[in-house]
Amino acid sequence: MQNQKMRIDIITVLPELLTSPFDASILKRAIEKGLVEVHFHNLRDYTDTKYRNVDDYQFGGGAGMVLMIEPIDKCITELKSQRTYDEVIYMTPDGTTLNQKMSNSLSMVENIIILCGHYKGVDQRVRDAFITKEISIGDYVLSGGELGAAVLCDSIIRLLPGVLNDETSALTDTFQDGLLAPPVYTRPAEYKGMNVPDILLSGNFGKIEEWRENKAFERTEKLRPDLLE
Amino acid sequence: MQNQKMRIDIITVLPELLTSPFDASILKRAIEKGLVEVHFHNLRDYTDTKYRNVDDYQFGGGAGMVLMIEPIDKCITELKSQRTYDEVIYMTPDGTTLNQKMSNSLSMVENIIILCGHYKGVDQRVRDAFITKEISIGDYVLSGGELGAAVLCDSIIRLLPGVLNDETSALTDTFQDGLLAPPVYTRPAEYKGMNVPDILLSGNFGKIEEWRENKAFERTEKLRPDLLE
Repeated sequence: MQNQKMRIDIITVLPELLTSPFDASILKRAIEKGLVEVHFHNLRDYTDTKYRNVDDYQFGGGAGMVLMIEPIDKCITELKSQRTYDEVIYMTPDGTTLNQKMSNSLSMVENIIILCGHYKGVDQRVRDAFITKEISIGDYVLSGGELGAAVLCDSIIRLLPGVLNDETSALTDTFQDGLLAPPVYTRPAEYKGMNVPDILLSGNFGKIEEWRENKAFERTEKLRPDLLE
Repeated sequence: MQNQKMRIDIITVLPELLTSPFDASILKRAIEKGLVEVHFHNLRDYTDTKYRNVDDYQFGGGAGMVLMIEPIDKCITELKSQRTYDEVIYMTPDGTTLNQKMSNSLSMVENIIILCGHYKGVDQRVRDAFITKEISIGDYVLSGGELGAAVLCDSIIRLLPGVLNDETSALTDTFQDGLLAPPVYTRPAEYKGMNVPDILLSGNFGKIEEWRENKAFERTEKLRPDLLE
């Protein structure tokens, strides 16, 4: 099936914020196994100015700095001269809200650039000229796009073939079938008077499957009826 | 106003994944300024077993491991014996979806515990017995609750008084007034034939304010009409 290794280039003013999420657990293993390459690019390396400025005050006045177009242009242009990119993504709270379907579809592309916004965001001309997709991870504001980029990468990379040990594990996740996951239980069967539902100990896998489907549906109806619409 | 320092206790099987987001930029400064304390608790430190197991197969069969109740109970019980917690939050994709209003309200509490799910999640009895709030950062699945916890903390901590240099900056963020932010521009006024809108260079701040309000409304109507409902 898919043999092409995925490559993700993240452009940021804070590469140091991003290190640990990519150096632990599933993302680390995916990178070590050679299933994905992730490169951080410090925007400050693409400036000529003495103070390596990447931001400036906004035209028209107002609080908050804005990332300048020139270093971003230089960085993206250099990357694009080396290979073709499927998407140049900008992480911003006013982008399209990320959902599992978008992650599924992004997990099938080859090369992507992710630009992390910071401060008040990037100069609008960057968005107009270079960005092919604007993504928000949710309706809340963060200090920058770095955590959003890490979240996006995690949601994509765990779907690449070979990344999870047990491929069926991702397929039964919440959202993959449009339902919330059913409750799960593990040992001990009784803990301080709290018991695991009998059905799960019954060994009757047909009944267990049916119970799980019912619970998944009940939970979705109660907590997220919008998913059933 | 608020002088009480906020305290956040994060319970996780992967504390090493969380280090860099809390050791950079705004979160680092907030911690250094003493405006918030963040403590990581490795769930493996609350096990008695030789192999420090924190997870086990799920009852009823199926892919994916489940975090056991006992170490979580021990950790939460120990923390609760030391102080009172306003919320014990579980990060899970089937929780209530985080939004700015929730972050605003959580930024006003004193002590919170955040439990990060992992693998297939936690034993349902943990949720039934200990958790006061279940939060999802969005409709997508991640490898664990750690990035969700970092996102939640960032969205809360940046709102604490004294954390941002310019307090007006957070108030004009996207979502705080129910609208997406207007486009922003910075120097140079002309870049490779792309110009900043004349109005922003006019110095007429009344007109600029009006232009920004119109743009914020236009953008919201086009990209996120749901926010206007």
